[in-house]
Amino acid sequence: MATAPNTDLYIPTWDDVLAAHERVMPYIHRTPILTSSYLNDLTGAKLFFKCENFQKAGAFKVRGACNAVFGLPDAVASRGVATHSSGNHALSLAYAAGRRGIPCHVVMPHTAPQAKKDAVRGYGGVITECEPSTSSREEVFARVQAETGAEFVHPYNDARVIAGQATCAKEILEVLGPLDAIVAPIGGGGMISGTCLTCSSIAPETRIYAAEPEAADDAYQSFRKGEIVAYDAPITVADGLKVPLKELTWHFVSRHVTEVLLASEQEIVDAMRLTFERMKIVIEPSCAVPLATILKNRERFAGQRVGVVITGGNVDLDKLPWITG
Amino acid sequence: MATAPNTDLYIPTWDDVLAAHERVMPYIHRTPILTSSYLNDLTGAKLFFKCENFQKAGAFKVRGACNAVFGLPDAVASRGVATHSSGNHALSLAYAAGRRGIPCHVVMPHTAPQAKKDAVRGYGGVITECEPSTSSREEVFARVQAETGAEFVHPYNDARVIAGQATCAKEILEVLGPLDAIVAPIGGGGMISGTCLTCSSIAPETRIYAAEPEAADDAYQSFRKGEIVAYDAPITVADGLKVPLKELTWHFVSRHVTEVLLASEQEIVDAMRLTFERMKIVIEPSCAVPLATILKNRERFAGQRVGVVITGGNVDLDKLPWITG
Repeated sequence: MATAPNTDLYIPTWDDVLAAHERVMPYIHRTPILTSSYLNDLTGAKLFFKCENFQKAGAFKVRGACNAVFGLPDAVASRGVATHSSGNHALSLAYAAGRRGIPCHVVMPHTAPQAKKDAVRGYGGVITECEPSTSSREEVFARVQAETGAEFVHPYNDARVIAGQATCAKEILEVLGPLDAIVAPIGGGGMISGTCLTCSSIAPETRIYAAEPEAADDAYQSFRKGEIVAYDAPITVADGLKVPLKELTWHFVSRHVTEVLLASEQEIVDAMRLTFERMKIVIEPSCAVPLATILKNRERFAGQRVGVVITGGNVDLDKLPWITG
Repeated sequence: MATAPNTDLYIPTWDDVLAAHERVMPYIHRTPILTSSYLNDLTGAKLFFKCENFQKAGAFKVRGACNAVFGLPDAVASRGVATHSSGNHALSLAYAAGRRGIPCHVVMPHTAPQAKKDAVRGYGGVITECEPSTSSREEVFARVQAETGAEFVHPYNDARVIAGQATCAKEILEVLGPLDAIVAPIGGGGMISGTCLTCSSIAPETRIYAAEPEAADDAYQSFRKGEIVAYDAPITVADGLKVPLKELTWHFVSRHVTEVLLASEQEIVDAMRLTFERMKIVIEPSCAVPLATILKNRERFAGQRVGVVITGGNVDLDKLPWITG
């Protein structure tokens, strides 16, 4: 990656993933893969849950953030990094910047969970708040970046970030060998793009399903129309999945995703509660979407070995959706 | 154990623990040990959390239950097993009986969490409800046992059960080697007795701390007075820790426990929420008591390697104590 320009046009390669894994390994956990005989019985599939909720900073996004931050030349790094994010990328970039000892500026909607704001500040990040819409976020961010001169690390439309996220599927396949399918949530598409990059490189037979809330089905619509469809401010309990695809993630999604599967808000909340109850792990609503889609599309997965990416565990514990919803 | 009579007078030995581990291994998980750099920083200790919340039936009690159930001669087993329990032992015995294909009768307070009642029935157990007091529980149980002729497996005052629980500390020490201390919750004392049995056999330098709610401090009072003190129906959020010590567990507690440490109701709830938030695991209130006592007794653990038993994850998710409390 050191020689690759940071533009939307550069498509990260398998070599970039290998370099990313070497680079980020000292700063991340190799997270465990859990199984549940109850959920296997319920779905008829053999599910392998990659627990990125146990990851540093509480989510897979630390993989991409660390790859970006630790790949910067010293002269660029010294001005710091900046981003806009609904939460986990912000935490992760603040964590990575803190580990490298450089500043991190974050533009975040004022509606983001308090726990995420506290955690960003806990890692030393500086927050500027915006309205909870894509347009407001981008406008405020442009101002912050102009003022600080910090290096922009986009939450997902960035080759360095996608190469970093691809290390998650790499770890899954290293442990389990080729799978019949991998299901991961889709918001902006960073995790799914990384999954596409890894599977197309080393496990091309593995089908890739993107799981999305019906209430923010821009990826589903994009997939149907063959071009990016974007909403400005969709409302869903899966607050990490509100952002639209961009050029680089669309490149991977349009070429390698088998299908976009949808789940309703209630199905997402039910799957989240079921995961707490049966797997005894804390997950955020976004990563309940894959299980929700598997439960409602049993015929696609029955009898198969299926990887499921539990993307993060940063949830506001005072507002669990089955209690306050 | 096959030759050992099931009486309160038989004190289980290390050989019983070795036999128990062989016997139960096909039916239980070897649960993971997790660490948290955040909690290490917060406490100044190096904490190793043995995650029995990921155990079959959701708690360590399946170890003792499986040892008892699978150690029964066929003629005895065919009449089934019976017990009284505030929850996890009931689940565990129902699970073990189900795996062996024999009946399981459970006397349970009508105030027990609905999730636990559902789970007992899910494993095929038959529930008879009683009042939430030790006296009512024992009275109703005597009737059930007389009617069924089932083998009584006491939740903790049973050599077979203690030998089974002892396999938990055995697994901890097998992975980590000798520790400076182990902290586990104390209710009736089954887990602590098993920990005493294992540590006194293979790691006698390891200090053993029993963590107890102030609001149900019968073990603390017993320890001070040198004899069993029992309350009939204490009220605490740590609903697994309301029951008193009995002869067999008192044998181990009085000889091998270093100290009984207390935590207030608020400290327990805070530690439970902190565990959800930082470790991303679902635990029941009872197993937040060890972390609560470590946080309030930092000087005893600073700089040391400390095992912490996360005893179970069977919590009513609709009534999380920091939300409804």
